[in-house]
Amino acid sequence: MQHITPPIENIVELLDQDNRSAVAELFAQAHPADIADALERLTPVKRPLAWTFIPGNERGEVLCELNEGVFKDLAHELDNSELIDAIKVLDIDEIADLIPDLPESILADVLFAVDTETRASLGEVLSYPEDSAGGLMNLDAITVRDNLSLDVILRYLRLKTELPEHTDTIYLVNRDNQLTGILPLEKLITGSGDDPAITHALDSPVLFQSLDQEDDVAKAFADYDLVSAPVIDDNKKLLGRITVDDVVDVIREQAEHDFMAAAGLREEEDIFAPVGKTTRNRTIWLAVNLVTALLGSWVIGQFEGSIQKLVALAVLMPIVASMGGNAGTQTLTVVIRGMSTGTISRGNMFNVLKKEAMVGILNGAIWAIVIAVIAAAWYQDPFLGGVIAAAMIANLFMGAIAGVFIPIFLEKVGVDPALAGGVALTTVTDVVGYFSVLGLATLILL
Amino acid sequence: MQHITPPIENIVELLDQDNRSAVAELFAQAHPADIADALERLTPVKRPLAWTFIPGNERGEVLCELNEGVFKDLAHELDNSELIDAIKVLDIDEIADLIPDLPESILADVLFAVDTETRASLGEVLSYPEDSAGGLMNLDAITVRDNLSLDVILRYLRLKTELPEHTDTIYLVNRDNQLTGILPLEKLITGSGDDPAITHALDSPVLFQSLDQEDDVAKAFADYDLVSAPVIDDNKKLLGRITVDDVVDVIREQAEHDFMAAAGLREEEDIFAPVGKTTRNRTIWLAVNLVTALLGSWVIGQFEGSIQKLVALAVLMPIVASMGGNAGTQTLTVVIRGMSTGTISRGNMFNVLKKEAMVGILNGAIWAIVIAVIAAAWYQDPFLGGVIAAAMIANLFMGAIAGVFIPIFLEKVGVDPALAGGVALTTVTDVVGYFSVLGLATLILL
Repeated sequence: MQHITPPIENIVELLDQDNRSAVAELFAQAHPADIADALERLTPVKRPLAWTFIPGNERGEVLCELNEGVFKDLAHELDNSELIDAIKVLDIDEIADLIPDLPESILADVLFAVDTETRASLGEVLSYPEDSAGGLMNLDAITVRDNLSLDVILRYLRLKTELPEHTDTIYLVNRDNQLTGILPLEKLITGSGDDPAITHALDSPVLFQSLDQEDDVAKAFADYDLVSAPVIDDNKKLLGRITVDDVVDVIREQAEHDFMAAAGLREEEDIFAPVGKTTRNRTIWLAVNLVTALLGSWVIGQFEGSIQKLVALAVLMPIVASMGGNAGTQTLTVVIRGMSTGTISRGNMFNVLKKEAMVGILNGAIWAIVIAVIAAAWYQDPFLGGVIAAAMIANLFMGAIAGVFIPIFLEKVGVDPALAGGVALTTVTDVVGYFSVLGLATLILL
Repeated sequence: MQHITPPIENIVELLDQDNRSAVAELFAQAHPADIADALERLTPVKRPLAWTFIPGNERGEVLCELNEGVFKDLAHELDNSELIDAIKVLDIDEIADLIPDLPESILADVLFAVDTETRASLGEVLSYPEDSAGGLMNLDAITVRDNLSLDVILRYLRLKTELPEHTDTIYLVNRDNQLTGILPLEKLITGSGDDPAITHALDSPVLFQSLDQEDDVAKAFADYDLVSAPVIDDNKKLLGRITVDDVVDVIREQAEHDFMAAAGLREEEDIFAPVGKTTRNRTIWLAVNLVTALLGSWVIGQFEGSIQKLVALAVLMPIVASMGGNAGTQTLTVVIRGMSTGTISRGNMFNVLKKEAMVGILNGAIWAIVIAVIAAAWYQDPFLGGVIAAAMIANLFMGAIAGVFIPIFLEKVGVDPALAGGVALTTVTDVVGYFSVLGLATLILL
């Protein structure tokens, strides 16, 4: 790949060597996204220094490209006036994206620094939830009356020196400002000049409403290969347009969220945040985990007498718990993904449950045989092998059932399954795993 | 959102009710991506029946939109001639995407069914790895000589009735067919007609080489907000172009891969695949897990005598193992993500290690105190509390160290950290957790 930016890998070294001219030169040539990458690689104490080397006209764009956690941290460190200078020149949708993460003390100053028109537009964009189509849209759509000919529209566009970024379509409106069609830019080039624009409008355009969820917007962009799409209100009035670059960011953030949430982390986690802050952020997750682990220990504690009589149980019980947790997590993962892509819905949920339960029993049976042989050989006790085997089948079956029901339940009560699903599932498989090994052993062997 | 497709949620029901005319009507109006979604919701036995209701001219596009696992399954079920009819009308890059997943028996027939020119182009595209820029590109770029004026180019484009999808730029080449510039389509509209095209070319275009990794391509599209970008060879000759719709698919697949891999699943897993097939797919992962669980059990087995003397150890040791696993997984997740975004590199690796180790020790200390109090109260034994506390600190520290080193090591030996990282980490924290609880107890308490 021919980079449009010189390599920034050595930014950490350059700052460590206090090689300021090299950093300044690097940043002068670099794309804002690459400067943002460079800042993210630095420890928080170094970032305000690096900031001073960023060309003034690029600072706002750099802020937009920063990871949320790093942005929040940097915004606290910088002078208010520097921050405002960087932000006030941005597009409205960019300012709107940054505002929720700004220190409250500076909010009023930012709104004061932009012109009246921008402030009014900001008010409009900020009135929609951040994760809605309204929160995602830009206000820079080009609209023309739908009864104009292609030639007239071409002449109108020629008056502009440039079009807004990602303009692949022009919006056609009637005299009441309602959206009546979407004209691809290429039709201006390939169409016959006398044709009314409306005759070249898209056959089946995708339109969004301001409160559509950003996940649905992202899926539609991916499914229908869109570059941009309009957002309209209930009266079909055009509110703005969504462009693919913002949708790509949504998809990446969503993916990061799912990946990080499984370990109880937030997607905006700053790798180089101070130790104290990171410890605080992560410790809540460990608290949740301690409670679930204590639940497992409590189950074991009920069978202390059995363990004392047959210490092999203490050796073998973690295997059953662990296998149930792994098999159950596979089911859980498939179900969470199926629910988020929409492949799993009410209509076929029972098929999923039936299938996963069967897979659980089958895999339980396979590994029950293996573990029975191992346990029987290890302790020269075929009955012990039998007990462990029975517990294995029971726990893998329960893991499958829990893997289907836990995400459904969490979704229903409004908890993110990607965050809480894993911990809930392993609590079930630990408890069932320990209880079935120790309970069956107590009944049958002792 | 105003759907361009009627809702397909009830497809399962309609087929169950054998309501064929409703299915046919639904599919006649639906976008291929939505028909693909509908097929994915069905059990495999129902899919060939549903296929017959898809309008002939949409079948190829539907195949392109299917999840890999579902496509493979359906391709095996369908008549070869039906499959070939659907595929042969597709674009070259689409055919190239499907070919690796086709049954081998049909490959030659597909190549025979397309025309000579397509076959030659297919050979070219297939010569690049699937996950490279070359494997991702289309061959439909519009190129013109760079010394032409905007007006001449406009007249040339007017001869076409439509441009290839996602044409936001025209490629400028010299007499040796080398890429010399990229002309945004909008410049044809806003620029002055007499200007030579090259004067309106992009200032710092992003160019890809055929062997660039698709991950790097995706990051560049996201960072630089691209809609399309050219792929060139070593002599700057234009090979093709990459468009954002394909990049969006790459990003989604990569995200799905990471999410699924953590549970040992492949991203193309078909939720409704037959029980036997799914059991086979998943059982290998459980085998890996059994081996690691046995390692933990072996450690416990070395201390059977200690457990018999102090059964509380069996009750408390899973807590230490579990807390270490959770804290370590947090570090692991942050490091895997940092490595894949490039935020973590050789230059700042040591900072990461130092910080994570500190977080591990701090969180270890916090939860050591809590568990010491619980254990001492539960068993009325302050020394037992002390042992568990020391083991907790040791295991959270080791979890942090392992969380940093495991993904570095896996990446070095060419194993996907998203796949194997979690299992490797919990093996370490289980072994260290059990060993430190039981070892310290044996030394100090018994």
